[in-house]
Amino acid sequence: METAAFENPLREGLRLERTPESCIVVIFGASGDLTKRKLVPSLYSLAGQNLLPSGFSIVGTARTAMTHEEFRSRMKDAINQFSDAGSDPDIWENFAAGMLYHPTNIKDRESFKTLRDLLCQINQQRGTSGNWLFYLSTPPALYAPITQMLGAVGLNRSHGWTRIIIEKPFGRDLESMRALNKKVLDVFAEDQVYRIDHYLGKETVQNIMVLRFSNGIFEPLWNRRYIDHVQITAAESLGIENRGGYYEQAGTLRDMIQNHLFQVFALVAMEPPASLRPNAVRDEKIKVMEAIRPISVEEIDQFAVRGQYRAGSVNGNPMKAYRQEEDVSPDSRTETYTAVKLLVDNWRWADVPFYLRSGKRMPKRVTEVAVQFRRAPHLLFKDGGASQPNSLILRIQPDEGITLKFDAKLPGPTVNVRTVNMDFRYGTSFGKKSPQAYERLLLDAMLGDSTLFARGDLLEVSWQLLMPILEAWHKPVDHLPHYEGGSWGPRESDEF
Amino acid sequence: METAAFENPLREGLRLERTPESCIVVIFGASGDLTKRKLVPSLYSLAGQNLLPSGFSIVGTARTAMTHEEFRSRMKDAINQFSDAGSDPDIWENFAAGMLYHPTNIKDRESFKTLRDLLCQINQQRGTSGNWLFYLSTPPALYAPITQMLGAVGLNRSHGWTRIIIEKPFGRDLESMRALNKKVLDVFAEDQVYRIDHYLGKETVQNIMVLRFSNGIFEPLWNRRYIDHVQITAAESLGIENRGGYYEQAGTLRDMIQNHLFQVFALVAMEPPASLRPNAVRDEKIKVMEAIRPISVEEIDQFAVRGQYRAGSVNGNPMKAYRQEEDVSPDSRTETYTAVKLLVDNWRWADVPFYLRSGKRMPKRVTEVAVQFRRAPHLLFKDGGASQPNSLILRIQPDEGITLKFDAKLPGPTVNVRTVNMDFRYGTSFGKKSPQAYERLLLDAMLGDSTLFARGDLLEVSWQLLMPILEAWHKPVDHLPHYEGGSWGPRESDEF
Repeated sequence: METAAFENPLREGLRLERTPESCIVVIFGASGDLTKRKLVPSLYSLAGQNLLPSGFSIVGTARTAMTHEEFRSRMKDAINQFSDAGSDPDIWENFAAGMLYHPTNIKDRESFKTLRDLLCQINQQRGTSGNWLFYLSTPPALYAPITQMLGAVGLNRSHGWTRIIIEKPFGRDLESMRALNKKVLDVFAEDQVYRIDHYLGKETVQNIMVLRFSNGIFEPLWNRRYIDHVQITAAESLGIENRGGYYEQAGTLRDMIQNHLFQVFALVAMEPPASLRPNAVRDEKIKVMEAIRPISVEEIDQFAVRGQYRAGSVNGNPMKAYRQEEDVSPDSRTETYTAVKLLVDNWRWADVPFYLRSGKRMPKRVTEVAVQFRRAPHLLFKDGGASQPNSLILRIQPDEGITLKFDAKLPGPTVNVRTVNMDFRYGTSFGKKSPQAYERLLLDAMLGDSTLFARGDLLEVSWQLLMPILEAWHKPVDHLPHYEGGSWGPRESDEF
Repeated sequence: METAAFENPLREGLRLERTPESCIVVIFGASGDLTKRKLVPSLYSLAGQNLLPSGFSIVGTARTAMTHEEFRSRMKDAINQFSDAGSDPDIWENFAAGMLYHPTNIKDRESFKTLRDLLCQINQQRGTSGNWLFYLSTPPALYAPITQMLGAVGLNRSHGWTRIIIEKPFGRDLESMRALNKKVLDVFAEDQVYRIDHYLGKETVQNIMVLRFSNGIFEPLWNRRYIDHVQITAAESLGIENRGGYYEQAGTLRDMIQNHLFQVFALVAMEPPASLRPNAVRDEKIKVMEAIRPISVEEIDQFAVRGQYRAGSVNGNPMKAYRQEEDVSPDSRTETYTAVKLLVDNWRWADVPFYLRSGKRMPKRVTEVAVQFRRAPHLLFKDGGASQPNSLILRIQPDEGITLKFDAKLPGPTVNVRTVNMDFRYGTSFGKKSPQAYERLLLDAMLGDSTLFARGDLLEVSWQLLMPILEAWHKPVDHLPHYEGGSWGPRESDEF
């Protein structure tokens, strides 16, 4: 069971040694896509970096019947396909030795009991000390039933630690989030629950805190006196691919804004935490989110814009309209583009708008935070409009890095001022690829470090803020703004 | 004659059109090195950029007898050797048509009269409207006699404008500077006199003002609250080459600190000028220089360090000691390294030391301004000493550009903070080489823009500050600090 000790002081400072206690990761949804593409390749990568404890074990579970060998063989294929390095015989042998499969059926309590027996057996054979990390990578409808079943067979407690990672979406509105949360917390304590948002595992997202709080030069500028506005953008050139069924129920507001972009917003806007203890950081996030001015139903249009893509083209390839996609209703009102304007009523940010926007079928794939500074108060060098105010761009993907845009003199015998870029690129600067977000988050969960996971109250606040928009958009309308596929969103968004 | 009109409002704002009135540049010392390497190639480069007026003419003069054709032929060779592009037949033809030579002898007043007649003749033939720019590129001993002779034959006034550029060194101490200044101002008005410091024509030096005053983000940090100290460094890997005779009389303090590095200091430290009028900028420079705390003779050692290079090696090549160089006394006490610490007693800079240092035979050639910021007041991420405080490096040569050093997260599943660089390079960013400093300065002088030239009172202030050091170092000493050739200066300098 978790104790205050897991608010661990290790997090403060350099931890060159950061190996978790021996444990078992139990993956629900082991025959699914996420397991194959991300979870097992990430765990394998951690093994390759010697970051996993001895005795570390994986138990895959799903409804499918499969032998241990069949599961291992599938996972080996997955690593070869989705891991950068591919599988290395030495690492693989040891990794595979701790990899088992167990079929479970949510309607069959007995299958959970045998799962429990298997975990106990592994404890004895591999010395995992009763440390269990459950990972729910199933359809969301199964989160509550699985959690209840784990509780029913006593898998919510052990003589070691027990934690549960729950994939998004964690509810689809305030009410369903509360309902799910209640069911989960009936079985697990809040500090056992790790609500994952893989955006927070991305290097550039993690770097926001380092950038702000390890440097002497950014924080003095990080306020309403010097910042004009902040744009947090997640654009995709892809449409919804084959996920029409899911997307019809979700939309951009639920799929991107409520979770990923709100989390990024919180990191950019929060006050410096007292320490790096998980709850110290999460308390600051909540604080700034609670300072966001509530949006009333009457003024929705001033604070939120939606759009849906029409037919269009991306890079010269014609693309069909959202309403023509598979599993999408021909008169669907689901938004594929959302822009939200947030005002933060505190000393630091009064009158500085934060724009959060996300869309499918945009001209390119880019996720970034653009901090736009105010102009110099007096322009000594009149620039004929050639220069723009300074800005700092934190690129989250692709091409992770930081760019500072500022004015410099154009070389030549006259004084011409031009905006230039100063660049820092993660890849080239450190000579290695950024690790998968899931690597970091899985390791953190095994270490009991919940900093990068969403606490229940954060979901509560974000849903409360967005409910007026969801409700307004739920009503039938005469006019739903559309935008051409391959454009930067509906006209209404420019008027923001 | 100059009038207030030449404090020209053109300077404010973008001047895409910046062509001077038609004029004659008269070069004294036309057979010398500077003419060949810099002056004529720079004028030629301006011609190639269409920045010279029609009718523009050059009159070279020196003691040597030479025909116009001989002079042109020499200058064509010089352009081919020292200009990046080499001579282009079309540009050269027009350029050479306005190029004449006239021998003058300082002891022969008649030769100055014929010079005057030649200039009047060019005025009529080429329409240069009595606009004359004299350039004194002779040994310093001739500055006063030439000036006097120009006055004697009436070449200090015309019906157009008359200006005189005087090369460094402008005096070798406070007294000789004042004496020379008096002689020059007997003949020319202050606003006709352009004391050149080619450092101020360098792109990165000019960019200091643009950087500070065109951007919203630097000036808020540009003070004692955020800056710990500033280092202004001009290091050369070369020794004194064949200039022993000159250097014995000069030393680093005169050769580099009093002029170049003080000018750079002034640009870094000054308050924002009210406008870009030449005198508005130069008034601010004087103001900050007058705020430098005077150094008393008793505390010289706390504020100034000197050194002289011993034998050593640079890049593996053995190099002889300064005292073994040609034309250097075997017991010379001339300094080849100087570091000076300046304290500025004003609101912006109280307690922020500025270190100015320069030396010959250092490990590499580098001229830069390093603004070192304070550490973040509270270090959330303990860094194990791996990171350094933020700094902003303005590289003046070689490899002109700007680097910001800050802390970022090292990619990987643990939080390791490392100092990284964000870079902006002039060359690659603008896709063209920075122009020669002399191009800019010659053009400015023709335009009557004296911003980048030293006003008499600035020399007065800088010499007043340095005289106690010069006097202290003039006294015989038991111990003169030495440093090995190819090292970063004497041990005493580290103790600073």
